Amino acid sequence: MRQMLATLGIVGVVILIAVPGGVGAQVAKNMAAQSPWGPADEIGTLNMMTDTSRLAILKQIVSGKVYDLSVTLFSGMPSCCGALGDPPYHLWMTHTPRGTLAANPFKVSRQVNERVSYSGDAVSMYTHTGTHIDTLNHFGLYGKIWNQFSVDDHLGDKGWSKAGADQYPPIVARGVLIDVAKAKGMTPLPDSYSITVADLQAALQQQGTRLQPGDVVLIRTGLMTLWPDPAKYQLSNQAGLSLEAAQWLVEANQAMLLGADNFPVESFPSKDPENYVPLHTYLFAERGVSIIEVLWLEELAKDQVYDFVFIAAPLKLRGATGSPLRPLALATQR
Amino acid sequence: MRQMLATLGIVGVVILIAVPGGVGAQVAKNMAAQSPWGPADEIGTLNMMTDTSRLAILKQIVSGKVYDLSVTLFSGMPSCCGALGDPPYHLWMTHTPRGTLAANPFKVSRQVNERVSYSGDAVSMYTHTGTHIDTLNHFGLYGKIWNQFSVDDHLGDKGWSKAGADQYPPIVARGVLIDVAKAKGMTPLPDSYSITVADLQAALQQQGTRLQPGDVVLIRTGLMTLWPDPAKYQLSNQAGLSLEAAQWLVEANQAMLLGADNFPVESFPSKDPENYVPLHTYLFAERGVSIIEVLWLEELAKDQVYDFVFIAAPLKLRGATGSPLRPLALATQR
Amino acid sequence: MRQMLATLGIVGVVILIAVPGGVGAQVAKNMAAQSPWGPADEIGTLNMMTDTSRLAILKQIVSGKVYDLSVTLFSGMPSCCGALGDPPYHLWMTHTPRGTLAANPFKVSRQVNERVSYSGDAVSMYTHTGTHIDTLNHFGLYGKIWNQFSVDDHLGDKGWSKAGADQYPPIVARGVLIDVAKAKGMTPLPDSYSITVADLQAALQQQGTRLQPGDVVLIRTGLMTLWPDPAKYQLSNQAGLSLEAAQWLVEANQAMLLGADNFPVESFPSKDPENYVPLHTYLFAERGVSIIEVLWLEELAKDQVYDFVFIAAPLKLRGATGSPLRPLALATQR
Amino acid sequence: MRQMLATLGIVGVVILIAVPGGVGAQVAKNMAAQSPWGPADEIGTLNMMTDTSRLAILKQIVSGKVYDLSVTLFSGMPSCCGALGDPPYHLWMTHTPRGTLAANPFKVSRQVNERVSYSGDAVSMYTHTGTHIDTLNHFGLYGKIWNQFSVDDHLGDKGWSKAGADQYPPIVARGVLIDVAKAKGMTPLPDSYSITVADLQAALQQQGTRLQPGDVVLIRTGLMTLWPDPAKYQLSNQAGLSLEAAQWLVEANQAMLLGADNFPVESFPSKDPENYVPLHTYLFAERGVSIIEVLWLEELAKDQVYDFVFIAAPLKLRGATGSPLRPLALATQR
Repeated sequence: MRQMLATLGIVGVVILIAVPGGVGAQVAKNMAAQSPWGPADEIGTLNMMTDTSRLAILKQIVSGKVYDLSVTLFSGMPSCCGALGDPPYHLWMTHTPRGTLAANPFKVSRQVNERVSYSGDAVSMYTHTGTHIDTLNHFGLYGKIWNQFSVDDHLGDKGWSKAGADQYPPIVARGVLIDVAKAKGMTPLPDSYSITVADLQAALQQQGTRLQPGDVVLIRTGLMTLWPDPAKYQLSNQAGLSLEAAQWLVEANQAMLLGADNFPVESFPSKDPENYVPLHTYLFAERGVSIIEVLWLEELAKDQVYDFVFIAAPLKLRGATGSPLRPLALATQR
Repeated sequence: MRQMLATLGIVGVVILIAVPGGVGAQVAKNMAAQSPWGPADEIGTLNMMTDTSRLAILKQIVSGKVYDLSVTLFSGMPSCCGALGDPPYHLWMTHTPRGTLAANPFKVSRQVNERVSYSGDAVSMYTHTGTHIDTLNHFGLYGKIWNQFSVDDHLGDKGWSKAGADQYPPIVARGVLIDVAKAKGMTPLPDSYSITVADLQAALQQQGTRLQPGDVVLIRTGLMTLWPDPAKYQLSNQAGLSLEAAQWLVEANQAMLLGADNFPVESFPSKDPENYVPLHTYLFAERGVSIIEVLWLEELAKDQVYDFVFIAAPLKLRGATGSPLRPLALATQR
Repeated sequence: MRQMLATLGIVGVVILIAVPGGVGAQVAKNMAAQSPWGPADEIGTLNMMTDTSRLAILKQIVSGKVYDLSVTLFSGMPSCCGALGDPPYHLWMTHTPRGTLAANPFKVSRQVNERVSYSGDAVSMYTHTGTHIDTLNHFGLYGKIWNQFSVDDHLGDKGWSKAGADQYPPIVARGVLIDVAKAKGMTPLPDSYSITVADLQAALQQQGTRLQPGDVVLIRTGLMTLWPDPAKYQLSNQAGLSLEAAQWLVEANQAMLLGADNFPVESFPSKDPENYVPLHTYLFAERGVSIIEVLWLEELAKDQVYDFVFIAAPLKLRGATGSPLRPLALATQR
Repeated sequence: MRQMLATLGIVGVVILIAVPGGVGAQVAKNMAAQSPWGPADEIGTLNMMTDTSRLAILKQIVSGKVYDLSVTLFSGMPSCCGALGDPPYHLWMTHTPRGTLAANPFKVSRQVNERVSYSGDAVSMYTHTGTHIDTLNHFGLYGKIWNQFSVDDHLGDKGWSKAGADQYPPIVARGVLIDVAKAKGMTPLPDSYSITVADLQAALQQQGTRLQPGDVVLIRTGLMTLWPDPAKYQLSNQAGLSLEAAQWLVEANQAMLLGADNFPVESFPSKDPENYVPLHTYLFAERGVSIIEVLWLEELAKDQVYDFVFIAAPLKLRGATGSPLRPLALATQR
């Protein structure tokens, strides 16, 4: 593994032993790490992508069928965080043909207003709405985020000057689906279930999928079968990854990016009384790994497409802690 | 041309003669067309894409370098429509580590609030902010949009039930850049300049680029050299396509989608006293052609990449008349 | 009564017989009335106020104790209409001392940023949030509001050009509290209870209060004892006025303005299968009577202050269908 | 003056000498004061109001004519702070009769949707929009506001837990207009003009008005004659009070509350290189005096009403740094 780390430019800032439940995690917990990609780094493991890595995976595309891994955004949709005071998704019309006729905002003739039927709209939302990416500034530890950028120096009233969604490159990489729900024969996984390393290993074996460094690893809990009922698909008790499983993916297997079809990727509520989002803080602040949440993986799962090109590009919202996202997948050779 | 139309399933709903400045356009103006793709069609020419067309162009990728064709969204950025009463881009923090410590919204111990440094934010914006796609419901004629869906039947207070951004498929197609600014040796093009058919033809010839049916055609006016100064990059007087040039692209050359690096794709202000956006209504309501605005084409232009895979996926904002977009380009064989 | 109407300048546009449950109301239902105050009138019965009426009631003030009849607005507060897609109350910081230090938006020295500790905030809300007034354009009948202003001619995308909150005068008038909850010995009144004319008469008698033309009549259902629990204080099943009771107040007694401590003033759900807000449409479109909702009447009730000066001034939100309000009361001679 | 201070319960926390241009201000500058009204005080000088003071002034009302001291709020109105990234006033429709017919959000029959014509709207704005009050938490010094409440302890992501608009009592007090523009014969006062103590004294003498402790003192610069042109009525260069004039009003004359018809009450830009709002920080943090901005004083001035009851009640926006306001005035005996 040391060699693999070296290849990736990681020189062992923190020594972690990926034994599920082991002490490795304890060592790291509670401090934001310095980036092995240098003091200016804001994107963590996304540095693993290169022109070469992108071309290699694009060359393996075997079909022009595009899988859409996102959900529709609409008023009344499930929201992680309405109860925490975050604004719900809201869309409203700012221009309508009828309103334009009645109020004539452009001071043109009635004839023109009758001809030109103008509709326009605006949206407001928590940036973590629908399918979205969490950027590394979303959670830190003790006032510092990934690469030790501090709240005091970098968090303004219009977002972070570091690690914002605007700094994120387009993501074009090998993607892998791990259909844990299918492997365990439980769709969705039970409330608050914590996916173990063994669960991941069993699913991968069953699928015949092998992980590679730099993968975008997407976990299917089956919770999207409850979507979009806000009473059923809700943050408080969703199944998701255990901390150990996340560690196994990013440390033992060098996953570049994790995603899931639930709200928090990790299982909720947290098992750690000292941290209500232990996987978030671990991935972001300690490992520089971003995550994608609320993914629509049902078509991939149905077609048993486990290997694919993953393509996604966050909106460049300056300083934001996340961005709505519409990731795509195209099947590749296995 | 009749054959080409037949190939595309278009059976001559409206007869148009693509003579620049000719009378052809007069015939068509002023009515929303029925779609040749059937009464349920909401996406117009995007129906030209198939698994086959996508795979064909993806197979021609020659480099893993990804071009990002979008601008950053930030408070104070240029806006097409603030003067028309549309809300500017706004991002605000809904959770900060400091605020969480002071107000303890989750009712946890101070120790936990010190450990877990939570940042979250929300955004509001006109959907036509930054780089974005205009969907076909954005402008209609006489109360009807593309495929004759009517305002009365389909425009609710939370958007259109037809032709919304949520109905748009991911776009994976051949892209072509026409660098008009470079060909004409004027960067940017002069205020309100209307790009002619001859301008396009000259630029294409100079570049050695050939258009193909189904292309995403991106026009460079050079106006992005004024970005992001709101005093210089503004809607009122931007250079853009003439109606005739747009007709030549979508009728004579079967372009699937048009885009440009200015606000309105077309030149502003309108030359038609009866219509303040003649190219918009023509493209959307009469031809079913969507457009992409405020594109960042500077890197493509600098590298002289004129042929590429164009990849973009609007956020699925239910019923919306547009969506912010982050399109990507990867160079292909010429 | 004819004389009383004449005094008030009402000349019998619609003949209504104020027999509770009688046929009078049937005649009027279903059409927006013309205003007896002329074709330009936008405020209905608020025209009853004059300098003379205001001075008369102000002269009767007997105490400098001010009763605050409004609730606090806060994130998470009960909302009539979240389930209908209206945005909840939301307040966010746009400037903080910490953020100003980190981002230095004004380009001043660190010294200045340390000295000047700037906090600023923004709000968004449905206009019918917390204690608020409904203006006459809030509900109409068959596309027309009070005084037959039509949706087609007067409803633009930034509100109505008629009867908006900006047209409303400050309200200074005699106020009367009718404590129905107390009179009936049920606090709060049972779910969906419809207050009858007899209920009002009994409470008035018990209180020793007499109604006068031009009164602001406030009804206490006792529902504020459930405030601010959103699970208990909710629109769907609240007690309120019956249509007959409202008719008795505004026709037989010439009340100028009605208010209550519940969400809809009327009882919910509606008993009329053809109209989900029969009291709203009756009061606004047929009688020109505005209403005030979500009033805090607990202190008045506790102190048994049944006669008072009522003072309130809607924010002049142009074209709005309502406005948050902070009404005041000062006890007067009885 | 010492006696006057003692009467008001002020016991000399900071020694200030009210000599215009003198050194007094230097002593006080740069620290937030403790309140003489005790450690729980959040409203400063508004504590000067009592039932007795209110009744006394209400008893002096001589006319029922109500002066409305507020401006209308509308899209496109002048804004202090758009350039600082604060959201402009925005109102949008969330329910319209046409939209309800098209989308049927309540799942009722078409018949019902035709009958019940529902209009609803929402607003968003910086809390300091139009006529508004600034609360004491709006500006502090060195991380502390009035009464030494600190940013660290009391500023959450949904506002301050201290000195918010929700804590403000209704204001009913003697009001005085000082028409400086008229007295100086310059309407409006010149750009950036700083009103002096002598200016105030001259105007008061000319009007025959005498200040009393506890007054709400409103200053007319005449800038409202430029309203509502955003190009002319703008923050950057408005005339207003000098720091010395403000000191004279609140220290020598015990004014309870200051207001003006400009954006910042004080003159802009600041003359103090170390503080861009020296009057704000002085009044709020050192003296506990709130201010009201963007007042409409034209009718009062025209009618030469210099003595009046001032009545205003901020919306109880929890934790907010200000609130839109619609103050009223009724003439009193002189």
